[in-house]
Amino acid sequence: MNKNTFMRLKLPIICFTWEIAMIILFGVFVRYNHEAGPEWLEEKKKDNNKSDIENDFYFRYPSFQDVHVMIFVGFGFLMTFLQKYGFGSVAFNFMLAAFGIQWAILMQGWFHSFEDGKILIGVENLINADFCVGSVCIAFGGVLGKVSPVQVLVMTLFQVTLFSVNEWVLLNQLHVIDAGGSMTIHTFGAYFGLTVAFILRRPKLNERNHNEGSVYHSDIFAMIGTLFLWMYWPSFNSAVSNHGDAQHRAAINTYCSLASSVLTTIAISSAVNKTGKLDMVHIQNATLAGGVAVGTAAEMMLTPYGSLIVGFICGIVSTLGYKYLSPLLTSKLGLHDTCGIHNLHGMPGIIGGIVGAVTAAAATEDVYTAPGLIAMFRFEGDWANRSPSTQGGYQAAGICVSLAFAFVGGTIVGLILKLPIWGEPADENCFEDAVYWEIPNEEEEVETSNQ
Amino acid sequence: MNKNTFMRLKLPIICFTWEIAMIILFGVFVRYNHEAGPEWLEEKKKDNNKSDIENDFYFRYPSFQDVHVMIFVGFGFLMTFLQKYGFGSVAFNFMLAAFGIQWAILMQGWFHSFEDGKILIGVENLINADFCVGSVCIAFGGVLGKVSPVQVLVMTLFQVTLFSVNEWVLLNQLHVIDAGGSMTIHTFGAYFGLTVAFILRRPKLNERNHNEGSVYHSDIFAMIGTLFLWMYWPSFNSAVSNHGDAQHRAAINTYCSLASSVLTTIAISSAVNKTGKLDMVHIQNATLAGGVAVGTAAEMMLTPYGSLIVGFICGIVSTLGYKYLSPLLTSKLGLHDTCGIHNLHGMPGIIGGIVGAVTAAAATEDVYTAPGLIAMFRFEGDWANRSPSTQGGYQAAGICVSLAFAFVGGTIVGLILKLPIWGEPADENCFEDAVYWEIPNEEEEVETSNQ
Amino acid sequence: MNKNTFMRLKLPIICFTWEIAMIILFGVFVRYNHEAGPEWLEEKKKDNNKSDIENDFYFRYPSFQDVHVMIFVGFGFLMTFLQKYGFGSVAFNFMLAAFGIQWAILMQGWFHSFEDGKILIGVENLINADFCVGSVCIAFGGVLGKVSPVQVLVMTLFQVTLFSVNEWVLLNQLHVIDAGGSMTIHTFGAYFGLTVAFILRRPKLNERNHNEGSVYHSDIFAMIGTLFLWMYWPSFNSAVSNHGDAQHRAAINTYCSLASSVLTTIAISSAVNKTGKLDMVHIQNATLAGGVAVGTAAEMMLTPYGSLIVGFICGIVSTLGYKYLSPLLTSKLGLHDTCGIHNLHGMPGIIGGIVGAVTAAAATEDVYTAPGLIAMFRFEGDWANRSPSTQGGYQAAGICVSLAFAFVGGTIVGLILKLPIWGEPADENCFEDAVYWEIPNEEEEVETSNQ
Repeated sequence: MNKNTFMRLKLPIICFTWEIAMIILFGVFVRYNHEAGPEWLEEKKKDNNKSDIENDFYFRYPSFQDVHVMIFVGFGFLMTFLQKYGFGSVAFNFMLAAFGIQWAILMQGWFHSFEDGKILIGVENLINADFCVGSVCIAFGGVLGKVSPVQVLVMTLFQVTLFSVNEWVLLNQLHVIDAGGSMTIHTFGAYFGLTVAFILRRPKLNERNHNEGSVYHSDIFAMIGTLFLWMYWPSFNSAVSNHGDAQHRAAINTYCSLASSVLTTIAISSAVNKTGKLDMVHIQNATLAGGVAVGTAAEMMLTPYGSLIVGFICGIVSTLGYKYLSPLLTSKLGLHDTCGIHNLHGMPGIIGGIVGAVTAAAATEDVYTAPGLIAMFRFEGDWANRSPSTQGGYQAAGICVSLAFAFVGGTIVGLILKLPIWGEPADENCFEDAVYWEIPNEEEEVETSNQ
Repeated sequence: MNKNTFMRLKLPIICFTWEIAMIILFGVFVRYNHEAGPEWLEEKKKDNNKSDIENDFYFRYPSFQDVHVMIFVGFGFLMTFLQKYGFGSVAFNFMLAAFGIQWAILMQGWFHSFEDGKILIGVENLINADFCVGSVCIAFGGVLGKVSPVQVLVMTLFQVTLFSVNEWVLLNQLHVIDAGGSMTIHTFGAYFGLTVAFILRRPKLNERNHNEGSVYHSDIFAMIGTLFLWMYWPSFNSAVSNHGDAQHRAAINTYCSLASSVLTTIAISSAVNKTGKLDMVHIQNATLAGGVAVGTAAEMMLTPYGSLIVGFICGIVSTLGYKYLSPLLTSKLGLHDTCGIHNLHGMPGIIGGIVGAVTAAAATEDVYTAPGLIAMFRFEGDWANRSPSTQGGYQAAGICVSLAFAFVGGTIVGLILKLPIWGEPADENCFEDAVYWEIPNEEEEVETSNQ
Repeated sequence: MNKNTFMRLKLPIICFTWEIAMIILFGVFVRYNHEAGPEWLEEKKKDNNKSDIENDFYFRYPSFQDVHVMIFVGFGFLMTFLQKYGFGSVAFNFMLAAFGIQWAILMQGWFHSFEDGKILIGVENLINADFCVGSVCIAFGGVLGKVSPVQVLVMTLFQVTLFSVNEWVLLNQLHVIDAGGSMTIHTFGAYFGLTVAFILRRPKLNERNHNEGSVYHSDIFAMIGTLFLWMYWPSFNSAVSNHGDAQHRAAINTYCSLASSVLTTIAISSAVNKTGKLDMVHIQNATLAGGVAVGTAAEMMLTPYGSLIVGFICGIVSTLGYKYLSPLLTSKLGLHDTCGIHNLHGMPGIIGGIVGAVTAAAATEDVYTAPGLIAMFRFEGDWANRSPSTQGGYQAAGICVSLAFAFVGGTIVGLILKLPIWGEPADENCFEDAVYWEIPNEEEEVETSNQ
């Protein structure tokens, strides 16, 4: 109860110093790439009189905006299900994402867009920054309501850093395919967040906090998040795929997988309830598991029915997780996972990695055509001689690496966050906006109701 | 009161068996089309070194995503106006649409995308599946709150089937233009739903159920649905139009028609109220009538002022329908139409069909240019000699066929749904989530308010 | 108290006559342009066998839809923060925007798209109409809750007219760059609205009206508006930029500036609160200031770090404005600004104009390349010899002209709105939907809570 949750110094200082650091680093490093700068005029002419419409902007911008909505409205509103934590859910998610994308542009830029001492950015960098931040939004779901805004920012700083290193290992060293991020975003994000939540566990919280639940209206707010995530997930999984058929295919596969998840989620949700009634928690979350699990394989020749199968399985696994596994983790390990990220991102993420590995290993020139196979798996340069089955092995290794990064990184970051200087809330103030927010006078609301 | 609304067996069984059926049928039939598969690489080269940006994906994907939002958020939230049926509105709509799009891809695929024993799908199939499901969402509005989730799924199965046959008759046999679906989606969907609602009528419900109304917050939730439908309707009506000017024109016409509807809706809403006050039901619904009514003619040379006139009329008709016709239908026929789909989709849909017929009949080479006229009405092959006035006649026939399918199909499906095995709610449980949902403990909400 | 707020004659008459006027004027003047009409087929062939994808529709339609969402959902929901004015916020905004876009197509069309006696429209006209209406939405925020729907429509008519003249002076006479509208939309809109609000000031309202505040749920509704504005702002600032790199760059700059605003808003919000707690009003509004302030310079070579700096400053200025300046304006001048448009659009708009002037003045061929500089600032025809520094001067003049239009226009329009014939609400009915709306029976809500 007597924890110091006073933010008046800590939060402004951290926001200001970090934002100033961003400005300096952007000033030193970040410039427009050749499609966002005036070089484009030259390039068009040289390259066979290209049309402006072939600027990467027009290939990716609509998907970028959809991804942007997923990160800010999707994740933000999905977490508003808590009855008294709506401000914190949507606004801390907003804060972490707004900071995270800046730091991600730098981190990912150094690894992937660094030329002559400068990071050259275009629309694809914006998408990748949103992706990176997506993994932080996931992890935030694990600690939602139990941390201070300063802790959120500290976690973001470290997690974006670790994400970028892990991504670089997977994409550049293991030469793995993961366009929708089953491994880099979901598996890493979920297990990182769970590890942090475990380190920060609060044994006394387990006697159920009366604020940790939804009310009727907050469940409907959460459905705004669910639906925008669900609808735009095809854009998420196809946003950075190769132009043309790969992007097209990724959207179709994701559409199919998600549709399938919805049906099995509803089936299980009803089947596991004594009176056969549906549970909004399942609808809000497990319906999305299909999108997570085709993240890696979406652009591959997974086939539409393959996608349906993936969604089918994940809807089941995820709903069962919410019903049986989450309570078990809390009671046995003391691992409290506010949003059930283990069920929505953890298990489906791993399944997605496996689906990707198997689909890659099974790839043949018959299915992909010879140039198609090369284009799909980037079997060029150093990797020109890699076979699909080897690729499958490396894909599997990618899962393990992501898990390792998550567990080790999460442990270190969790320990840092445990330092008693970040202003975390007392147990009885968890899941309650009033600790960090000016709350409007509720008396007026009652007055309204009584009119 | 003693109706058996126990879903624990029925709902899981139907979800599982149908989803498995989808997987099998997709496995046998559904493959990527040449723009979503590796054949694209070949095709580009052959076809004059096409650019990737000419893949149909880039022509249609942004519109697809807008349509997707209309189906899931638009229809889903529009129906959340009921004070105690928010879960059912948004989540049963989610369920029916997620199942419906799968079945629609198959049904429409057999009719329109069947080659060498396979259904070849691309982004246009996804849009068309969403369109088909849109007609089910409409019909769902007629029975909202009065049916069980199992009934919803059964209705979806049959309605998607009937929709696809009707659509095939119109587009392929009558060779009719209906890109925005005034006839195939709105007229068919509304009168199908009304027929089902009539067959399932509950005489005792007419003594106004105290749950059948909105509260302040639920009306604002519903406006989320209204606005996303309104804003994205230009994408809806242009999503499957011909590339280029047709798609461009369809968006402009829809934009104009919708703007006009808003003004006349507000005018009538105020004029028919004794104290001149506005009614949210009208704003939530009748403002959309203009979009419905330019569904058929949107891609034609309707002209911007023609679009304004259509919207003008439909805003009036629709609002008057809500005010005077709906109560009459309930009291005289016992036809209870929860969301007023007759006013929003029924009458404006028929008007839209007529506008399309007249606009087609009036088409001239002067206005369209000779190649433009052929491109617009597909006067090719067997239809090379059809004149615009004949086309107008066939368009009018399309309205009648759609109505016939709706009435006959609706009657049969209504009778099937009347079987006492689907777990429909008792009269006193209508419009109430608690029958099929675990409802969060409302005591906590009161507690919040009293703080 | 005894004000006549009876709308039954006034509102319908104004809606009908104005909509009929729109139909007549559209009938006389508005036609499709060459990319939305059948001429497109010809044009493609002539112009080197262009592809359909080079139709302007595909360059701008996704951005158009995003802008559309900002106007209707963004502004509409941002204003739902008031506890008892949700209907009026979202629906009057809907009404004014639906009327305004029609009138804007005409006004802007006469100035910019007039050929051979006709206004030829395409997707760019739709965007510009939305932009114009955006300035009315801003001004509406200043008078929210204090005016009747008739007053809103009258204001819209005049403001759209003045906007179009001001825009013509800036773009065509001063030859100024303002793609994202820092000057034409934000500065003009805000100061116009503030002037109107000042003329209509209600001295007795200053004793704080108990309805003028938010409740917990209304603050979350408002975040829907905030987030859609924030997420889609890159589309807003790039929607009418030149094809290719300019559009690409405008999106990047806006993305960066907005991210930076969020951090400094949070910092200041916490720092100015005695207990360090955050205030939702700041998060809802000041986080957007960065988007406003890069409106003019977004497509210039502002550089990503330049954008961060702009957002950094504006987050601070805007939050401080909400905390200190707004109360001062109310107490000293009697200027009551319901949504704080001075802080969100006024000051950041002027800053944006200055940033644009400085960035233009600093432009060099080194940075832009010679053809790039010409393309950027349209140094062609009569302006072929203008230098960047001269351009900077004209940009600065644009700010002053916009302010002059706002003050003079706002005064005249304010005086017109002060006439006692428009049905404005009494002081005690301000910020309350019940004056102009049928409100659902709240008794039922209480009943729900007590279950």
